[in-house]
Amino acid sequence: MTDRLAPGSRIGILGGGQLGRMLALAAAEMGFSTHIYCPEEMSPAAEVAAHITRGAYEDETELAKFAAQVDVITYEFENVPAKTAEFLSTLKPVRPGVAALATAQDRLVEKNFMRANGIATAPYAQIDTLGDLTQALRDIGTPAILKTRRFGYDGKGQTKIDALGDAEKAWQEIGQQPAILEGFVPFAREISVLVARNSNGDLAAYEPGENVHLNHILHTTTVPANIEAPLVATAMAIAEKIAAQLNYVGIMGVEFFHVPGNETTPLVVNEIAPRVHNSGHWTQDACQVSQFEQHIRAICNWPLGPTTRLSDVVMTNLIGDDVDEWDVLLSSPNTSLHMYNKAQARPGRKMGHINQLTPRAL
Amino acid sequence: MTDRLAPGSRIGILGGGQLGRMLALAAAEMGFSTHIYCPEEMSPAAEVAAHITRGAYEDETELAKFAAQVDVITYEFENVPAKTAEFLSTLKPVRPGVAALATAQDRLVEKNFMRANGIATAPYAQIDTLGDLTQALRDIGTPAILKTRRFGYDGKGQTKIDALGDAEKAWQEIGQQPAILEGFVPFAREISVLVARNSNGDLAAYEPGENVHLNHILHTTTVPANIEAPLVATAMAIAEKIAAQLNYVGIMGVEFFHVPGNETTPLVVNEIAPRVHNSGHWTQDACQVSQFEQHIRAICNWPLGPTTRLSDVVMTNLIGDDVDEWDVLLSSPNTSLHMYNKAQARPGRKMGHINQLTPRAL
Repeated sequence: MTDRLAPGSRIGILGGGQLGRMLALAAAEMGFSTHIYCPEEMSPAAEVAAHITRGAYEDETELAKFAAQVDVITYEFENVPAKTAEFLSTLKPVRPGVAALATAQDRLVEKNFMRANGIATAPYAQIDTLGDLTQALRDIGTPAILKTRRFGYDGKGQTKIDALGDAEKAWQEIGQQPAILEGFVPFAREISVLVARNSNGDLAAYEPGENVHLNHILHTTTVPANIEAPLVATAMAIAEKIAAQLNYVGIMGVEFFHVPGNETTPLVVNEIAPRVHNSGHWTQDACQVSQFEQHIRAICNWPLGPTTRLSDVVMTNLIGDDVDEWDVLLSSPNTSLHMYNKAQARPGRKMGHINQLTPRAL
Repeated sequence: MTDRLAPGSRIGILGGGQLGRMLALAAAEMGFSTHIYCPEEMSPAAEVAAHITRGAYEDETELAKFAAQVDVITYEFENVPAKTAEFLSTLKPVRPGVAALATAQDRLVEKNFMRANGIATAPYAQIDTLGDLTQALRDIGTPAILKTRRFGYDGKGQTKIDALGDAEKAWQEIGQQPAILEGFVPFAREISVLVARNSNGDLAAYEPGENVHLNHILHTTTVPANIEAPLVATAMAIAEKIAAQLNYVGIMGVEFFHVPGNETTPLVVNEIAPRVHNSGHWTQDACQVSQFEQHIRAICNWPLGPTTRLSDVVMTNLIGDDVDEWDVLLSSPNTSLHMYNKAQARPGRKMGHINQLTPRAL
């Protein structure tokens, strides 16, 4: 109760991308100063922050100076090196904490955590050798997905295996790294829940959005998701359970596969992201408190804000050249444009997003 | 149509206070860079802006350098010196424009403008001498309010006259400046409308909020206002007429007195503010598009956003020591805290505000 961080305090953020930018904007609206730490000279987040440190994530001298100037440290990407997080946490509170980060960074540890807590996942096996892989393919069957345990995002570091004979090719393809084989889940759709927990232990989940990907990159999130009402509550409860069991502090994205035919486990956890998440951008315009404000509230141990959805909403990412359409998109009714002020619209690069609202169907 | 300012452009803002801060945050969310010009070394707005120029408003060398670096210029306070605005407008678009600013800066010009457009105001008279004042008091009657024509805000530069014999004292009190005498309007309440106009001529008004002042400073704005439904539309239409007749570009606050007993003119315009306005802060949490985003849309000639109110709302200013209550306020349900990150909570100083939402009564 008494460790609430007061407005005027300084929030340190590792990472200078669009998520850092939107976190910094939310923090500033609440009266905080922000301090961005990232290696890049120019970054979307640094543009809106009061303080900037340019440094490598392995540079403990710069990291220590940064930590000395802030009151709490958070991050906008889950691939913060474990050593960096551990070092910083000896100096200032790092939220979400080192343990939660370690779980989310390793697909195997994450899956084992889910299993230990009775949460359904795809069938999976630990893969350290080609022998492990061929055995696992026999056990789990095909099709299956081989994924590196670490540093995967937006479809990177993973490959689909359609037949046992493709094992060696797949093993080469992911670079013979410590990996996990996941059985194919015949899902109808992907949904995701953003859940927040503060260090007081309060929990607050937003209702699930339904995600559609293009080229392995999130394309749209639609809320409400096209799932039965009881599953909305189930998804939110599972997300809250994960956050509570991890002693998580901050906001977390939980992705689920929806398997309508599966009576006992119609929702299967795909993965978690220990940060604000692209699939939660709809909250910026459809809720009083966005995922960005909620994350800042959580890491400052403020009471969490309401998660009620005030409108129906479709969030659409603007990837690469999509952004040239900004002028057309703007003319749709009830459309909010969120842009990251990145200089170059490279293919596959997230440049911005729009939220299109319609009155909430009752 | 074609002069829409693209995301990535740079928006120059004169003034470093909380209104500039919230404008800069809204602009950044839409992908703009911001550039604050103000005399202060440290300011709430500069903290969140990508670029800062510290300079006097009369320093044409610095102003010219600033203008050269931005694509459009706006301001957060109406007392921008006319000469500054005129100088800048020879270099870059200044929005709202010089003519609108000149009208809003002079209470007499403003009242004459309203009269010329058939918009009801309090009875008033131009006062240049003590003789003018005594004559006007005979014509208009008492009580009446003597106001300087320029540079009044939050009750400053004005004095109430209860009897003809107090004329000389009042004249001394306001410093014998060019002034206006306004007859007393027996109003039941003050309401205000925020209206936006872009250079394409599109108009969008928010519905009126009801304002309560304490010590001449806005205390709360409650929406919906406690007025009959037809008056909501009337107030919005008057505000739109003013914006259109002024060829206004940006957002404008229009304050009205509500006089329930007056059949022909139940709404009397008190004054206009050529900028985002404290009485529009409720839009941040109760609407998809806030007055700050709307202002940026308008000055960039974007399509204006929806002004639909999604919730009922009470905005409360945190003045001086009120801010010490932040911790308690946060615990109210559906409360958003907006803080300006000012170092010292001096008496009368606006430190932040809260918006408390309740579901919209149908």
